Amino acid sequence: MKDEQGILFILSGPSGVGKGTVRKQLFEEDSELQYSISVTTRNPREGEQDGVDYFFKSRDQFEDMIEQNELIEYAEYVGNYYGTPKKYVEDTLKAGKDVFLEIEVQGALKVRDTFPHGVFIFLFPPSLDELKNRIINRGTESEELIRNRLLEAKKEIEMMDAYDYVVVNDEIDNAVRRIQSIVVSEHCKRERVYQQYKKALGSELL
Amino acid sequence: MKDEQGILFILSGPSGVGKGTVRKQLFEEDSELQYSISVTTRNPREGEQDGVDYFFKSRDQFEDMIEQNELIEYAEYVGNYYGTPKKYVEDTLKAGKDVFLEIEVQGALKVRDTFPHGVFIFLFPPSLDELKNRIINRGTESEELIRNRLLEAKKEIEMMDAYDYVVVNDEIDNAVRRIQSIVVSEHCKRERVYQQYKKALGSELL
Repeated sequence: MKDEQGILFILSGPSGVGKGTVRKQLFEEDSELQYSISVTTRNPREGEQDGVDYFFKSRDQFEDMIEQNELIEYAEYVGNYYGTPKKYVEDTLKAGKDVFLEIEVQGALKVRDTFPHGVFIFLFPPSLDELKNRIINRGTESEELIRNRLLEAKKEIEMMDAYDYVVVNDEIDNAVRRIQSIVVSEHCKRERVYQQYKKALGSELL
Repeated sequence: MKDEQGILFILSGPSGVGKGTVRKQLFEEDSELQYSISVTTRNPREGEQDGVDYFFKSRDQFEDMIEQNELIEYAEYVGNYYGTPKKYVEDTLKAGKDVFLEIEVQGALKVRDTFPHGVFIFLFPPSLDELKNRIINRGTESEELIRNRLLEAKKEIEMMDAYDYVVVNDEIDNAVRRIQSIVVSEHCKRERVYQQYKKALGSELL
């Protein structure tokens, strides 16, 4: 059963929900997953290595990649590009290794176009009450601003519709355990293993 | 999110694959799952309690239950009936507790009729080679008998098609961990939680 392809897992969710923290702890505990290395035009910080932390590219190189359709998704923050390289993800999956992508909600929806069989995980705040309290208690904000933030939150939750799983981030340990369970359980999905068994059955067993 | 219904998990697979052993260890480790108590017409053995180990019934009572459509599935072994009571499963699920059913392949397919949203897990031998070796090395059997057993195994594997997950029983600990992961991960499925979030969102958040 070792000719199996890796699975692409995409972790996303509203900003501030704790995606980065959850992803970091997940990778401290799990060495089987391969974190998807992003491409960026920003300068390497001290200690950062090309091909480990990021693929570092010039602005021209990055824009070439956009034109050549070599990025699954990309965005620009504070004057620098960040993107997910298609070839790296495809090669890692083909080598039978799972790839883990942590990404904003908008980017995640674009990944779905290229990898419809990816497993999309939506990280969610502990409760709607808490989400509401967080939004309301952010400071001395106008009622209109609060109203807009609530509407924004509503929109983000509506996006859950495009996801396979919803993981509540009540405690980081719990959220990590749930994501680990999703990884294990996705590898047991019948449609992922059935063809392999059937093939083996035809050739070996009878 | 506490008004959620429980989930029905059905563990099945070819005879001799180790369903009972896996189920036993699962219940030693996990107190959240509720084991589905069967109805039987056989006499209680020493220490067995009605409503704990089995629901003990007379033959007449059992046949009434069949007629009244009160059993999800039933079978007769060595002159005694064994069945799965529908009301007990339904009540436990409604109380928000997961129900775990360990059952033969034929019975499992009948459960699908009553509980199409159940989660069906197929326990599988470590490898097809090992399955083949087990069948061939069972003793001094005729080639025809071996051939029939291989065909039987092939049929049982074809039944995997009706299942959601395939768990390889290479080691009991691994199989148990995989099943526990499936339980956790099924509770994170978007379609199970989405309606609750949406309802809560409509009523509470805005």
